[in-house]
Amino acid sequence: MLTVGYLGPEHTNTHVAALKRFGRRARYVHAPTVEDVFRLVERRQADYGVVPIENSLEGAVTHTLDRFIDFVDTPVKIQGELEQRIRHCLITHAGIDLSELLVVYSHPQALAQCRLWLDRHIPQAKREETNSTAEAVERLQMQEKRWSVGHLEPIAVQPSQRAAIGRAELARQRLPPERKLTAVPIPEARDNKTRFLIVGLGEPRKGGRNKTSILFALKDRPGALHDALVPFKRNRINLTKIESRPSKRKAWEYLFFIDLEGHGSEPQVKKALEALKRYTTALQVLGSYPVGARFHRA
Amino acid sequence: MLTVGYLGPEHTNTHVAALKRFGRRARYVHAPTVEDVFRLVERRQADYGVVPIENSLEGAVTHTLDRFIDFVDTPVKIQGELEQRIRHCLITHAGIDLSELLVVYSHPQALAQCRLWLDRHIPQAKREETNSTAEAVERLQMQEKRWSVGHLEPIAVQPSQRAAIGRAELARQRLPPERKLTAVPIPEARDNKTRFLIVGLGEPRKGGRNKTSILFALKDRPGALHDALVPFKRNRINLTKIESRPSKRKAWEYLFFIDLEGHGSEPQVKKALEALKRYTTALQVLGSYPVGARFHRA
Repeated sequence: MLTVGYLGPEHTNTHVAALKRFGRRARYVHAPTVEDVFRLVERRQADYGVVPIENSLEGAVTHTLDRFIDFVDTPVKIQGELEQRIRHCLITHAGIDLSELLVVYSHPQALAQCRLWLDRHIPQAKREETNSTAEAVERLQMQEKRWSVGHLEPIAVQPSQRAAIGRAELARQRLPPERKLTAVPIPEARDNKTRFLIVGLGEPRKGGRNKTSILFALKDRPGALHDALVPFKRNRINLTKIESRPSKRKAWEYLFFIDLEGHGSEPQVKKALEALKRYTTALQVLGSYPVGARFHRA
Repeated sequence: MLTVGYLGPEHTNTHVAALKRFGRRARYVHAPTVEDVFRLVERRQADYGVVPIENSLEGAVTHTLDRFIDFVDTPVKIQGELEQRIRHCLITHAGIDLSELLVVYSHPQALAQCRLWLDRHIPQAKREETNSTAEAVERLQMQEKRWSVGHLEPIAVQPSQRAAIGRAELARQRLPPERKLTAVPIPEARDNKTRFLIVGLGEPRKGGRNKTSILFALKDRPGALHDALVPFKRNRINLTKIESRPSKRKAWEYLFFIDLEGHGSEPQVKKALEALKRYTTALQVLGSYPVGARFHRA
């Protein structure tokens, strides 16, 4: 049986994406951080790990990118990618009025994605960040007090004054007190999707269409980034993504993540990567993997 | 008198950076979000606004970048930049033991920057995100209960079980109950600095050394990014920074922020920007501003 580690807790978007790819027959293990998902895979406690890498509204998930920077010698390689449409709901106790709400809990990415809607419909509510959308819904059930102007003691925030943002499934969970939760979709005109990486040990089987992810540091001189892109242009390799991240060794020094179309074993990709080495101080191939492939235990 | 809006509350890193640049004689107004700082400037309620743009360990402050994307017609221009060394402290009630701690509160950036130290020294403590480091310290003083396995009611988290991460100054603030707080520096071998933007209306005076920030969308075709960098290389213009952000209109479509050395009125910068237009569908100059200049009311 396949074991899949994912960024949990249960019922988060990562869980739903993992379930869709690996199905009901795999064993699922949730981990509280991206770091923990990588460790599950490195210690062979999971065959695959699923972590978010990018959202179409909020951009890169920097924890995931930085895991490749901080542990450059990891045997973990990218095995594939998943895409998941995100549908946020406002989850509240039943029968409340939006104008009563004082606090909205959610993961920072969800709060950021719903910012314009919240500004318009619940401008009075304070936004409070939680570690996951699942935790936000748990917070609806907790006792909560807060300091308020003109009070010497913290005052209780009533359940009817609180909301969470998350998937509709979260409202259907059984949670400690038997209060009923309702979920109302938050309208989103924009294209809200999250891309996830599947990570694992070893090399994935080559697919029909493939993608390669690399990480590199540039030599410090003018025109360095331009020069680094020349080998791709010359070998007609399409770049689907470029992302810069701080090196963390020296302020305002950067590393670059690039996703390119093609497999590392293809001659023109090999040639481009070989040429790229002239401009880099470090170059790491994070994985060559099929676009949209299925996974089975080898 | 100069009025300066900044991302608050008081005693945050942004406040300290603003004070250092504009001095004790300016009037300071704090705003709860980056959006509110921009609005203060747009409504002429502040002459300048100070917002974080980038940290040397955690990378871009995407809220600030996205404000330029979401309000492309804003009259606000970048007027200058500031840099501030970040020194995090662990703030607790006096006389506690690290091994007793159950929760550590802080801003997500501060939690992320101290991740390795927290993993090693307080692995048992849950990390809870707050809107600012100042709010994290306030949380030390609040009553807090949480659900725990084997309990039917939420149980209280004692003051001695809680810590916050923030500047040492925050421990010296007067806060509701008269408990004493102590601040112990969290050692950091890495170069931890934050860069802030000063924003305002109109064009800043040209300095000796200048920088120009631009935002653009590329035409969708292979080699587009390479081609867009050619004009800079050809005109010997050094790029100090490139950052990609989602367009938010279509999934996996990106916009690029570039910082370059030179002023928009210089011939080679003009030429490069003119040539760049051939490869872009939109190009916005966010500001040409002196590096390290002082500010006075015009």
